[in-house]
Amino acid sequence: MKLEDVITQVLPRIRPGEEERAFVRRLMDELKEIAIETAERLGINAKPRFVGSLAKDTYLAGDHDVDLFLAFPLDTPLEALREKGLELGKAIAERLDSYEVAYAEHPYVRARYRGVKVDLVPCYDVKSWRDVRTAVDRSILHNLWVLDNLGGRNDDVRLLKRFFKGIGVYGSEIYVRGFSGYLTELLVIYAGSFADVIEKHEMILRMKVLDPAGWLRREPELSMKTVERESEAGVPLIVIDPADPRRNVAANLSWEKFGKFYFKAGDFLKKPDVGFFFPPEKPSGSYSAELRRKGTHLLTLLFEKPELIDDILLPQLERSAKGLARALEKEHFRVFGMDYGYSGERAFVMLELDRWEREKVTVKPGPELHTIRARDFYRKNERVWMEGKRLYAEKRIRENLVDVVSDLLERNQVALGKNVREGIKRAEILLDFVPQWLERDAYLFLSREKWNLKG
Amino acid sequence: MKLEDVITQVLPRIRPGEEERAFVRRLMDELKEIAIETAERLGINAKPRFVGSLAKDTYLAGDHDVDLFLAFPLDTPLEALREKGLELGKAIAERLDSYEVAYAEHPYVRARYRGVKVDLVPCYDVKSWRDVRTAVDRSILHNLWVLDNLGGRNDDVRLLKRFFKGIGVYGSEIYVRGFSGYLTELLVIYAGSFADVIEKHEMILRMKVLDPAGWLRREPELSMKTVERESEAGVPLIVIDPADPRRNVAANLSWEKFGKFYFKAGDFLKKPDVGFFFPPEKPSGSYSAELRRKGTHLLTLLFEKPELIDDILLPQLERSAKGLARALEKEHFRVFGMDYGYSGERAFVMLELDRWEREKVTVKPGPELHTIRARDFYRKNERVWMEGKRLYAEKRIRENLVDVVSDLLERNQVALGKNVREGIKRAEILLDFVPQWLERDAYLFLSREKWNLKG
Repeated sequence: MKLEDVITQVLPRIRPGEEERAFVRRLMDELKEIAIETAERLGINAKPRFVGSLAKDTYLAGDHDVDLFLAFPLDTPLEALREKGLELGKAIAERLDSYEVAYAEHPYVRARYRGVKVDLVPCYDVKSWRDVRTAVDRSILHNLWVLDNLGGRNDDVRLLKRFFKGIGVYGSEIYVRGFSGYLTELLVIYAGSFADVIEKHEMILRMKVLDPAGWLRREPELSMKTVERESEAGVPLIVIDPADPRRNVAANLSWEKFGKFYFKAGDFLKKPDVGFFFPPEKPSGSYSAELRRKGTHLLTLLFEKPELIDDILLPQLERSAKGLARALEKEHFRVFGMDYGYSGERAFVMLELDRWEREKVTVKPGPELHTIRARDFYRKNERVWMEGKRLYAEKRIRENLVDVVSDLLERNQVALGKNVREGIKRAEILLDFVPQWLERDAYLFLSREKWNLKG
Repeated sequence: MKLEDVITQVLPRIRPGEEERAFVRRLMDELKEIAIETAERLGINAKPRFVGSLAKDTYLAGDHDVDLFLAFPLDTPLEALREKGLELGKAIAERLDSYEVAYAEHPYVRARYRGVKVDLVPCYDVKSWRDVRTAVDRSILHNLWVLDNLGGRNDDVRLLKRFFKGIGVYGSEIYVRGFSGYLTELLVIYAGSFADVIEKHEMILRMKVLDPAGWLRREPELSMKTVERESEAGVPLIVIDPADPRRNVAANLSWEKFGKFYFKAGDFLKKPDVGFFFPPEKPSGSYSAELRRKGTHLLTLLFEKPELIDDILLPQLERSAKGLARALEKEHFRVFGMDYGYSGERAFVMLELDRWEREKVTVKPGPELHTIRARDFYRKNERVWMEGKRLYAEKRIRENLVDVVSDLLERNQVALGKNVREGIKRAEILLDFVPQWLERDAYLFLSREKWNLKG
């Protein structure tokens, strides 16, 4: 199939139809009216501003969350913005279907209206990056810049977004670290079109620094500082924010996600296929057959999932998996890989290891001969020998992996995420076996299909 | 038992009796006469000088090898000393029972006479350390100094020698690295008596530098240089040679042997016993029971012993055992210890390992994303994933220890001693089993009784 033919097949599935457009327009009009009325009624000086993909008309069909920002004048004190912003958000949300208060840098209101998620976020009504005071303020500038520069390439953004989703690299959440919506838009604007982004993947890898708004000429000092800082941090890509020369839009993009884009773009160019946009579900296989094929072992910890949002839970699970891996490496098990996640109320950490049993006795290094402790070590141990100036003796150790893990957890020898610590310490420990609901995860992990760039 | 009682019991067994003394005296007189006559007959200007324990009357009963040095005037050219020395040695040996030529820094003659080994070694007739030109010259000075300073404490030297032999730390050969006869004599002279050496073991450890002849006052610059150089080298003990301030008599003493003396002296003081001088044979046990107890595995390589003297063979076996250990550690086996040796025509290397089987598939790190090789690695491997900026893939590996070792040897991936390389490459490889003649060695190794300081 040719690239153009693939695009022709994909576009109708991702471009919102007339009916959906009309619904979205109506929704936005209603929300704007409600917001203006409510602000007037409460005497709060804030203007509604739509940001995000709806405002830029780059949303994918069926995917139309609303970001409605409540923009306060620049001279509003931060405390007042916080207080009045929440008050206004709540008052607006009262007229919608339901809502809750969520917390980021500042509290904001997360509501639902006509089946659509509506975030009501207070911010400053900034005109330039020099005005930016809170983390969300920049969104207003992003919106303006994209509207000014997109030039009708909205469908190219949709294609690239869908491509990113299809290959699993879309989303800037901390547990994804992929391409954000804004970064997707910038890539299209920078390269020219969806096809250009794909074709220029090699160039994008080699260039490393993209400067869509020409900051390096207009603000050389400030933007070079950004380039230097980000290079130092070792990121795979630097895209100087057209709305703020101090910022790298790709700061949170991981090497893994960038690498996947790089290889997949190459594969797609060689053999364009709709499957890149809408991948068939990964075929599963038998995790126990994988264990036999590889001759490795699977350690699984199952425990109660604490009620936390993904942004907080997943990094803690990752930290715990890494902590467990480090502790076991110290105990001379080799760790080949790890995974973590949850399903329903159960969270899990999985490690792939070289063995489940080890020697019963190991060598314990003691003090050096000249030290005060030498005689004590000699006295306390049954068999003592020297290698060079150091004393050694035998030490009995636990031989079974499950015993070793229980013991490490009991003695607090594992670095664990704060909110999952208690759960993990009471976890069920499984060896080379998982319950049915985890079988697919276990297979995708052990086979590495989960991360297989070629999968 | 009290220390004095132990000495009373040990002395009669190690002090040569009247008959043995008479025999030794006669032997020395005869040898001296033969040497003088032969030198005269050949017109070679060299004087016979007895050195070593016979000359100093510090030999143990039944242990009376003769060191007969042939001392040439200082103005003899080195080449002439070499040539005439060997000629004279051979001519003397012709009148003894049998002989062969041996090689050290210079060739010398090793003869036998009346059942006694007689070394005929050419040297310079030095009067002071400033005259020393060849490695053996110093022996003459050692002899003189000990004769001048021993003051009748010959039996104390005998006791200490026997103590050192009993606990297994006597001998300065490169594969022993224990206490030499001369070092034993110096310790007695320095400390006062056998009992004093034992009692002052803690002091000797802490002092670290012993200066029996007061060189640090008489030749401060030269002897301080010796102390600095040896400290830098990290030796356990520095004994400035009374016969040469540039030399540390204990330069070749290993930490292991010094440590053993230290702990054994402490034990002996606490509980004096004849067993320290004449230890009962170490009880053997079952090596296979040891393997079960420890949960470890024994790898043995058996091969033909090349015809080499211990001085050359044993260091090569050690190097080979270490090379094998390093190569296996790289393959992710843990090595807990190693041993080597020979019996008859068969040499062996033994390693104790954590396991004999490992996973079949391991993780192969690939290039980084930005490198030229990245695309190639992606193309060539079936499953490829990234961790940070690096690519990874699976790699099949040999799972059985014996296969791994054969493979390593075949691919020349093991650093081996020069003269044993070919033998080891054709070695029999045994796992958790040794032939009967090696059972005792295997037990002493696995149980660490071989090196057990408390054994």
